[in-house]
Amino acid sequence: MARGESGAVRVALLGCGTVGTEVVRLITDQAADLTARVGTPVELVGVAVRRPHRHPWLTENFGHLVTTDAGALVARDDVDVVVEVIGGIEPVRGWLLEALKAGKSVVTANKALLAEDGPTLAEAADASGADLYFEAAVAGAIPLLRPLRESLAGDRITRVAGIVNGTSNFILSAMASGGTSYGDALEEATRLGYAEADPSADVDGYDAASKAAILATLAFHTRITASDVHREGMRGVSSADVAAARRLGCTIKLLAICERVVDEAGAESVSARVYPAMVPDSHPLARVDGAFNAVFVEAEAAGQLMFYGQGAGGAPTASAVLGDMVAVARNRVGGGRGPRESAYASLPVRAIGEVPTRYHVDLEVADREGVLAAIAGEFARQGVSIAAVRQTGGINGSIDSTARADDAGPGPARLTVVTHSAREAALSATVAALADLDHVIGVVGVLRVEGLGRAVSALGMGE
Amino acid sequence: MARGESGAVRVALLGCGTVGTEVVRLITDQAADLTARVGTPVELVGVAVRRPHRHPWLTENFGHLVTTDAGALVARDDVDVVVEVIGGIEPVRGWLLEALKAGKSVVTANKALLAEDGPTLAEAADASGADLYFEAAVAGAIPLLRPLRESLAGDRITRVAGIVNGTSNFILSAMASGGTSYGDALEEATRLGYAEADPSADVDGYDAASKAAILATLAFHTRITASDVHREGMRGVSSADVAAARRLGCTIKLLAICERVVDEAGAESVSARVYPAMVPDSHPLARVDGAFNAVFVEAEAAGQLMFYGQGAGGAPTASAVLGDMVAVARNRVGGGRGPRESAYASLPVRAIGEVPTRYHVDLEVADREGVLAAIAGEFARQGVSIAAVRQTGGINGSIDSTARADDAGPGPARLTVVTHSAREAALSATVAALADLDHVIGVVGVLRVEGLGRAVSALGMGE
Repeated sequence: MARGESGAVRVALLGCGTVGTEVVRLITDQAADLTARVGTPVELVGVAVRRPHRHPWLTENFGHLVTTDAGALVARDDVDVVVEVIGGIEPVRGWLLEALKAGKSVVTANKALLAEDGPTLAEAADASGADLYFEAAVAGAIPLLRPLRESLAGDRITRVAGIVNGTSNFILSAMASGGTSYGDALEEATRLGYAEADPSADVDGYDAASKAAILATLAFHTRITASDVHREGMRGVSSADVAAARRLGCTIKLLAICERVVDEAGAESVSARVYPAMVPDSHPLARVDGAFNAVFVEAEAAGQLMFYGQGAGGAPTASAVLGDMVAVARNRVGGGRGPRESAYASLPVRAIGEVPTRYHVDLEVADREGVLAAIAGEFARQGVSIAAVRQTGGINGSIDSTARADDAGPGPARLTVVTHSAREAALSATVAALADLDHVIGVVGVLRVEGLGRAVSALGMGE
Repeated sequence: MARGESGAVRVALLGCGTVGTEVVRLITDQAADLTARVGTPVELVGVAVRRPHRHPWLTENFGHLVTTDAGALVARDDVDVVVEVIGGIEPVRGWLLEALKAGKSVVTANKALLAEDGPTLAEAADASGADLYFEAAVAGAIPLLRPLRESLAGDRITRVAGIVNGTSNFILSAMASGGTSYGDALEEATRLGYAEADPSADVDGYDAASKAAILATLAFHTRITASDVHREGMRGVSSADVAAARRLGCTIKLLAICERVVDEAGAESVSARVYPAMVPDSHPLARVDGAFNAVFVEAEAAGQLMFYGQGAGGAPTASAVLGDMVAVARNRVGGGRGPRESAYASLPVRAIGEVPTRYHVDLEVADREGVLAAIAGEFARQGVSIAAVRQTGGINGSIDSTARADDAGPGPARLTVVTHSAREAALSATVAALADLDHVIGVVGVLRVEGLGRAVSALGMGE
């Protein structure tokens, strides 16, 4: 355990954007506290940035530490810990692998890299005995990974589900509270700095899927990568969907869900998925607004736990990075190691088609006799059990503005069906068959309903 | 690091009540998982109980492990880890000290002992290099101490506040939702097994005060014992208080509050206190019902975090114990150590009289001219600023049933005052002076209001 002559733990920082700047600030402002907590000083020995002229605060105050050569910084003999807050897969992967192979501890917030290639990093850490910590990669400041890896290490986790992308939650919150359209809400999020110029990582669910992969890996002791996660974004959520959810006593949230699934034969598998879903307003997740994150964890002995806080932002993410940095520094001083990769369970991944969920299906239908029977028949044919049906409209009802005025018959009506738990594959087949029915003018919306319970009774039959 | 010949980590369990039984069950049921997670088997080598005949399940299934001599079990050479779930100060303190001095790691759920004499245990652990873990001592299954000790180790915690006693929260929830009296709610809690035959530890705030001491110690790196915690129980909360809170848009909760206080001169101190207080319904803590626990943590970089879950019960508490057991077992295998006591800050404790809070004061007053002026004068005299006043009654108003029928004048009225933040000492002096006023028939209720904000505007002036 090489350390400086002064006994200091020497830290190299890769990247100095919003999070990195806060990391530098906290390391320097809290030097005395960190020394007391670690047992020896923590010394920042280098900061790698691509374009130093874009970091005036850094170059002015810490110019002697700045380098543009991250690879050379990582390779330096006088570096004990590498903190990475650049993000993205390449070229970061190579630097972190080099660091771990050389026995340097790594603290990273890089969810994309961990979700794509976490096992390779973990193996490098195990081989050299170095630490690999990444609390900041999921849910920012919320202590979530440490509880999963350590506090619940004697329990059996059955489910981790939550809101782990603040940008999409900000947009969905704005749509729900202000009746704003998706486009307007996205514009507002961009203006406030919550959304990036290209919002795809957030609104298309890539960011949440990376986090789901990391959570599922830890919760179920099974290597889950981003490609194992079923992913649907929230671009398709319309104001009509938001209104439909409200009528049901629900709120639409972009959820990351990781579940241990046990089939009839007792065989276990892991389901990891990201999609927008209706959540009953009685559920605490429905009340998580704006850019906040919240995650529910269910374990056999612990029961239900919830963690709530800021999922992004410079200071909150830096708090998580610093917590990890103190841990790896303590380990270097004390001679211990953090928890290693635990992937012994190696459970198979369950295909999304086999995952049971409840669904909310909104149909625009011709207001004729027999329409309900025909529709119910299609659900029954696929073995999808209906929990509740509500019809609104005829011609004077709450008809969608897209209703075709030239329809024959007494005019279209809206039919809302909420199913009992059904396999995705059966529901997809049902929806395809419904779209072909004469009576059905259009399938207006299909959304999953998660954590239902009370919402079904709130729906009732007709109004 | 002595371990069994098989390499197993050998565990002695002290106590086998509700929690201990679950610990035994989890260790045996999850043996394969624990082995995989620790890296070596975890072996239960002895269980100490006072009266074996009261534990038929234990003696039937693990009779060969049972002993009545806890001291001898702790002293055995073939014990690596001592798990204690007996509770109480003596004789447990001696056993745990013996274990730690002998280099055995200790996992304990004993909040009373930790709050009274944690530093002695911590010193013994540090001296021998043994681990001392106690996640289960506060908020049961909720991972709270590990986040405070580790995840937030690079941050500056400013406040830890929450509901940490499930029994009193069950009673207050029943009073709030059902209009039940304290006595009836307590009876229900006892019937359901939430309250013990002698409910004093719960309803008088001793349990919460122990937990506050542990939380404050970790959050502020300062030794805080139970005697440093200002403690008021919730026996005195009446149905009238509950109704008054509801009128204000608040709910009464028994809170444990640990704060870093910075005075005008920049000097820091720690305030740790337990009392029933009004919490605005808009605050998530107001919605924590039944026997659940929830804790808010505020840190400078992380911002606001919330942790929610089951704070008591056999399985949830055992989950926390097992998580710690896995951690200390991993440390024994890997050669590391958990975080040591961190009390370097040694902040002074702030006297309750110097702690500023908002107050809700309910007065029964004679309905005469000048009464408001007289009362406002008393508040002003002590420098307590009034945020809002509401008068109800006269003779046909909402007069408390204890109003004296033989009062002279046009009959009593109710005056409700909510103050701005005021020092406890100033408020106490105000209340004493008010009680002596001619116009005041009685001080009906005094309750603190915590985390106010929106509640004041909800109060308004009149109805």
